[in-house]
Formats: sequence, structure tokens, C-alpha cells
Amino acid sequence: MSAYPESMTRLIKELSRLPGIGPKSAERIVFFLLKESSEKSKALAGAISEARTRVRFCERCRNLSDEEICSICRDPGRNAKALCVVEDPKDVGLIEKTGMFHGLYHVLLGAISPLDGIGPEELRLGDLLTRVKNERIEEVILATGAGLEGDATALYLARLLKPMGVRITRIARGLPVGSPIEFADPATLARALEGRTQI
Amino acid sequence: MSAYPESMTRLIKELSRLPGIGPKSAERIVFFLLKESSEKSKALAGAISEARTRVRFCERCRNLSDEEICSICRDPGRNAKALCVVEDPKDVGLIEKTGMFHGLYHVLLGAISPLDGIGPEELRLGDLLTRVKNERIEEVILATGAGLEGDATALYLARLLKPMGVRITRIARGLPVGSPIEFADPATLARALEGRTQI
Repeated sequence: MSAYPESMTRLIKELSRLPGIGPKSAERIVFFLLKESSEKSKALAGAISEARTRVRFCERCRNLSDEEICSICRDPGRNAKALCVVEDPKDVGLIEKTGMFHGLYHVLLGAISPLDGIGPEELRLGDLLTRVKNERIEEVILATGAGLEGDATALYLARLLKPMGVRITRIARGLPVGSPIEFADPATLARALEGRTQI
Repeated sequence: MSAYPESMTRLIKELSRLPGIGPKSAERIVFFLLKESSEKSKALAGAISEARTRVRFCERCRNLSDEEICSICRDPGRNAKALCVVEDPKDVGLIEKTGMFHGLYHVLLGAISPLDGIGPEELRLGDLLTRVKNERIEEVILATGAGLEGDATALYLARLLKPMGVRITRIARGLPVGSPIEFADPATLARALEGRTQI
């Protein structure tokens, strides 16, 4: 028999499901919540319900959004002629944090992966082609991952987009900033040499 | 501007308040919740609200409880003549896990600490004396911490309880199980010698 009341045991179990939270940290969190004012727990419970109810995919770019169209697509200050293609809504946040891109996004919600049964149809690449055409996009930046699946997706997309006369670029592969040469694997080093730029 | 919808940003902020969860883990948890079915998020939000609403202090022993009287106090199988005095409801769980104690508890909700302005009145020690008398307790186990405040509290309680003719014991101080002698501080080693038992 657990020494905790049932409602506490249930909350500990619910929290332990979350990534990075084991039973010990779940217990710590529960004691923390019980010590706080009940308004604060209410705010947390409310935030969970609200995020889960409101967040959906933007109908234009499939980024996560509280509204039909996401805040980036709605922003008139963004360059609507440049489109950055990413695999996951998470990637949008990461690229936004660099502050280097001011165009719009298109989220594939995956990458081509025959082993997982994900082909071009599952990624609805037709939607992307329609967007590029209808929105008169001038540059498509392929920002899929640097692994096998990301590369395959980028190659496949490049082939589809080429006939449309749009400029197609791929984000650079090379040494991570701060990394000494000795830590780089041969494939990364090869890409870094291949992608060298004049200084 | 955050790339995430407002409701997500708010949930990330709420989760980051919890102990052991930083902004990065909060983000990971939010993406995890969004990928799960919305029923599961509803269960989590519900468990938080319910625990916060239902959990209170047991009116008899001040352990945490879903009801007026906690499950340990309600259990007719426990030895109602032995009372284990602890500082915190958390300690009840820890002692229960050992499986070595089958009596009842009394939670002080603190320890005597003049520096923090916590004296015998704040701990409502009178309630404990009344219990010992009315419930005809035969043994009081003082399981407060082994630090200065826990020791002071145990000493103070022992003095109060002595005239009542009840058996008073204090949990042992000594080497933690598995610890070599070289890691023990002199005070712990002194206690271990003092508390030696015949084998």
C-alpha cells in the first residue's frame, strides 16, 4: 500500500509518463505543487488543457498555431517570396532562434523514409508545389536534416522543384561551430571541404 | 517573438516553474503532450486539479490524505499503541517503504528552529501530548532528522513525554549501510560507536 493519498499517487503516475520525469522527480513536483497556492496548480492544469485544445497545424504552412493561420504566416513583415522547408514544427523554432531567416516556412511533418512507409504522398508534397506556384516563391531553402532521410527528402524535393524555375538551396553541412577538426567524422569533413567558401 | 503559439509558450512557462524542469525539458514535454491523444493531456490536467483540491492534512496525524482521516490511521491492522513522530509528510512515505514499522504516525510539520521562529507552539506539540494520553500510546519513536533541529526537537519532546510514563525511543544514528568507515565524518562515527549493539 502506498503511504500517499490516492489522488497523489495518480498524479505521480501521470507525471512519470512525461519525458525526462521519473517517479522520484514526479514525487518532488507533487510536493512542490501541494506547497504552492492552489491558484498556481489551477494555472498549470489550465495551461495544459488550453494548449492541447487550441494548438493545431497552420493551414498554410503546417507550423503549430493557436489560430487557423500561424503567427509567422500572418506577419506582413516577413519575406513572402522565400520558403524554408523543414521536417518538424520544432525546427521552425530552432531556425527562428538564429534570427537569420525572415521568410515563411513549410513544414513537411516528416521525411521520406521507405523503411517507415513514408513516401512523397504521406508528406503531401503536392501542397508544397502548389504553394511555390501560387505564391510565386523565388527561393526554396531545403532545411531538412543532414541524415539519410533528410538528404533523400531534399534531393527528391529539388528534383520536383527544378522544372518550376525557382532558386533551390540546401543548408550547409560542415563542422559544428567550436568543434576542432579532430572530432569531425570523415563524412562531415568531406562536406566541409566540398562546401568551402572564399574568405 | 516566439515561434510557438501563445498557448504553447504559456504552458512551457508554467512547466518551467516546476522543480527539476528547465525551459528545454518543458519544451520537450509540451511536444510530447501535443503528440499524444488529447485524452491523456486531459487526464494529466485533471490529476493536477484533483490532487490539489482533495489532498489535505489528516485530522488525526497530519499526514497527507484524501479524506478527513488518512488511510494509515483508518487501517485497523496497524498497531495503535506505537506512534512514530516525523517532521514531514514525506517522511511517512520513506518509513513506510522500509516495511519495518506497523504503528501510527504523528507529523509535526516542521522541527524546532529558533532561527526560523519555529517554537513548540508552532508545531502544536500539545496535540501530540493529548494523543499520547488519550490513545494510551505505549511507545513513541522519535524519527525527526539527525541534524541540529531534528535533534533539538527530539530532545524537547523526550522531556515533555517522560513524565507520561511512555516508552520513548530515538531512531539510530550511525554509518549509512554500504558506507566504508573512511567516508564517515567524526560525529557520525562517534554516534555509531556510542550506539553499538552486541552481536
